[in-house]
Amino acid sequence: MRKKQVVVVGGGTGTHTVLRGLKQYKSELDLTAIVSMADSGGSTGRLRDEFGQLPTGDVRNALTALAADGDEFDDLFRKLFLYRFNRGQGLDGHNFGNLFLTVLTDILGSELKAIEAASRILRVSGRVIPVTTDNTHLKAVYADGVIMIKEHDIDSGEDATRKNVRITELCLLPPATITEAASQALKTADLIVLGPGDLYTSILANCVVNGFVEALNSSKAKIVYVCNLMSKAGQTVGMQAAEHLAEINKYIARAPDVMLLNSDPLPIDLLEKYKLEGDHPVTNNYNPGPTLVKEIPLLAEEKIQTVSGDMLTRSLIRHDSFKLADALCNCLD
Amino acid sequence: MRKKQVVVVGGGTGTHTVLRGLKQYKSELDLTAIVSMADSGGSTGRLRDEFGQLPTGDVRNALTALAADGDEFDDLFRKLFLYRFNRGQGLDGHNFGNLFLTVLTDILGSELKAIEAASRILRVSGRVIPVTTDNTHLKAVYADGVIMIKEHDIDSGEDATRKNVRITELCLLPPATITEAASQALKTADLIVLGPGDLYTSILANCVVNGFVEALNSSKAKIVYVCNLMSKAGQTVGMQAAEHLAEINKYIARAPDVMLLNSDPLPIDLLEKYKLEGDHPVTNNYNPGPTLVKEIPLLAEEKIQTVSGDMLTRSLIRHDSFKLADALCNCLD
Repeated sequence: MRKKQVVVVGGGTGTHTVLRGLKQYKSELDLTAIVSMADSGGSTGRLRDEFGQLPTGDVRNALTALAADGDEFDDLFRKLFLYRFNRGQGLDGHNFGNLFLTVLTDILGSELKAIEAASRILRVSGRVIPVTTDNTHLKAVYADGVIMIKEHDIDSGEDATRKNVRITELCLLPPATITEAASQALKTADLIVLGPGDLYTSILANCVVNGFVEALNSSKAKIVYVCNLMSKAGQTVGMQAAEHLAEINKYIARAPDVMLLNSDPLPIDLLEKYKLEGDHPVTNNYNPGPTLVKEIPLLAEEKIQTVSGDMLTRSLIRHDSFKLADALCNCLD
Repeated sequence: MRKKQVVVVGGGTGTHTVLRGLKQYKSELDLTAIVSMADSGGSTGRLRDEFGQLPTGDVRNALTALAADGDEFDDLFRKLFLYRFNRGQGLDGHNFGNLFLTVLTDILGSELKAIEAASRILRVSGRVIPVTTDNTHLKAVYADGVIMIKEHDIDSGEDATRKNVRITELCLLPPATITEAASQALKTADLIVLGPGDLYTSILANCVVNGFVEALNSSKAKIVYVCNLMSKAGQTVGMQAAEHLAEINKYIARAPDVMLLNSDPLPIDLLEKYKLEGDHPVTNNYNPGPTLVKEIPLLAEEKIQTVSGDMLTRSLIRHDSFKLADALCNCLD
């Protein structure tokens, strides 16, 4: 029987979570991760500036999520790719997986070959495809007219006075074109998963690539949007589920078939921490419409074991990989 | 039939050359590299200072020499371990193999486990053993009373006024003890190869470890000293073969059984370049004595193919791996 083709679109922690869960069903599913190439911050941003290569961070996230975890060697390579330096002049803050991809790109001559080699080293289940191989940056126009360029500046939400200002327009500068592989994957998919993840800088950063919407809309796939659990300062403060979904609709020019929302109660102690940052839970305010809303338990209950430097340590309230994977598999029926 | 046990003692480029040649005979030989742990310069020195780990450079040299070169993956890993960054703030000058070993050490908890893991990744023929796992530095006392501490300062030979000043005493500060594995390898060896390589900072840096001389002298192995082709500013300017050998004798408390000297003529154009640096060919001035001198063709005729960042690019007049390996195998008969 033909395996079901599942395409996950995103790039960051949320995408890692979805992929890690779906990997459990690798015998039944053909997995593809389409990842944003507009990342410009942190270790990735430094390497991007200094080596003139495409950003590596989102590729690394997806590769490590899909990496084999069979033998001792698999574990070691996954740990290597997740390792983050916490000391060393010029090394501090760098992720070794990013350096690995940078060096592979230099040796092999292209990012695509580097991803292919890393996929073999990590014995990845499925494929990781950059949404574009064009060198581009995100550009966000805000409701107050301010324009920000580069993913890192849009993402950081550092300016406390601007935490609530909405993004009214997102695009790429210069415009970028979808890779043939990403386009084909979307067109032949049975299920396309958008999210969870930072709405503008991870999810929509893919959708604004030229050719993405066309490929998505010529696909027979069921489209599922996994809504975030919490708002994100500088991006989605004040937005509930309906507003998240409306933004997705706007950029992909159609309504997703399904929106997954969490029904588990959120831990009060963690909510307090988020509140200090100006963030709030995303609640269900969606009036019945073209998208089927599934409100089901999706929360990670146990603290996920984290590796030094693993980006999973960053978020405290998060989706459970396995609950999410089960919910997505149910959407395939 | 029991394989012959061959132990190569050193650390730098010369050791890499010997090991690469001997690897061709891996079906007949059991190869062990005992490498100096006093390296303090360049990429290795930076990592040593910042991560508080043992130096990685000489380990990496030996590992890459003994790495498998069977399939595409082998080649890729060898290239990764030889890769040197030529840009990137804080990365420039770092060797990726050194970073790889540093991260492995951090993940696995010890340098020995990191070497073991890297040996498996590179599918190394034989073993690479640190001469000591004590944290130590070289100390050199010069004929004019000057004392220098740290391998890098002794090795650099940057001070033009001191190019001819002889080292009268070499030791480790603090004293270091030989690893059990290195001691055993020496004791059970059939052939022990010293050199080629920087006399003080690569070869004798091993011999001054406590327990080294005792292990060497309780071994039934034939001991072969491979004399350098050229002098090295700051270490051996003015020294010919007999003086090189006398220094070996002094530190290992016995005469090697064999000294290999090159009989090939050296290329005049390259000699001119060396002359500008104050260096000269090492000639045979040894009067018949306890050491058998074999003067045979050992020079690399073709430019060895070099990988970006490979340390082999540094030396211009060098030994031929295969001629050297053949000469060493002949010493086993």
